[in-house]
Amino acid sequence: MMETIQHMVIFDLIHAVESPLTDKFLKDGLTILSQIPGVKNFQVYNQISPKNDFTYGFSMNFDHAADFESYNSHPAHVSFVQDRWMKEVARFQEIDFKSLIVR
Amino acid sequence: MMETIQHMVIFDLIHAVESPLTDKFLKDGLTILSQIPGVKNFQVYNQISPKNDFTYGFSMNFDHAADFESYNSHPAHVSFVQDRWMKEVARFQEIDFKSLIVR
Repeated sequence: MMETIQHMVIFDLIHAVESPLTDKFLKDGLTILSQIPGVKNFQVYNQISPKNDFTYGFSMNFDHAADFESYNSHPAHVSFVQDRWMKEVARFQEIDFKSLIVR
Repeated sequence: MMETIQHMVIFDLIHAVESPLTDKFLKDGLTILSQIPGVKNFQVYNQISPKNDFTYGFSMNFDHAADFESYNSHPAHVSFVQDRWMKEVARFQEIDFKSLIVR
């Protein structure tokens, strides 16, 4: 049975908006994380709600919870978090959506 | 030009989880809000990240910012917010994603 999860993280960077370091972080995130097995529809967003002051968002889908677990423990993800995320992200919040059947 | 927005709100209800009042709120939200012109792919979610303690999520897409503005001012949305949201939602956070072109 399909149990699609939309995994999202909204974040701010320590770099200036529209700077080469911001561009590089977003591009590397897309390149590195989107190639991890099980990741579908990886997207890079601007967070634009005026009621929310985070600036960027990454979003991806997983068809199964097991794919999400594999992603979290994948070496490419672990090293991206350690080498880039922890050094360049000022703050973040995760949001994970799983479909709820409403009758 | 297409400028798709994913509009999301994560929230907690004043009602008990898995109660008839919770079911009714989520069902009415789906029924009422998904029928507003311009709303695409309205979804009801459980928010399942352990790093985030909101319980539910609504998500919808708009093809254009103008559709999002029309939704916000639509009488069905305004009355849902006034008659249901403000009375039954304990707290909430909005997240709006707009695609960012990463080169």
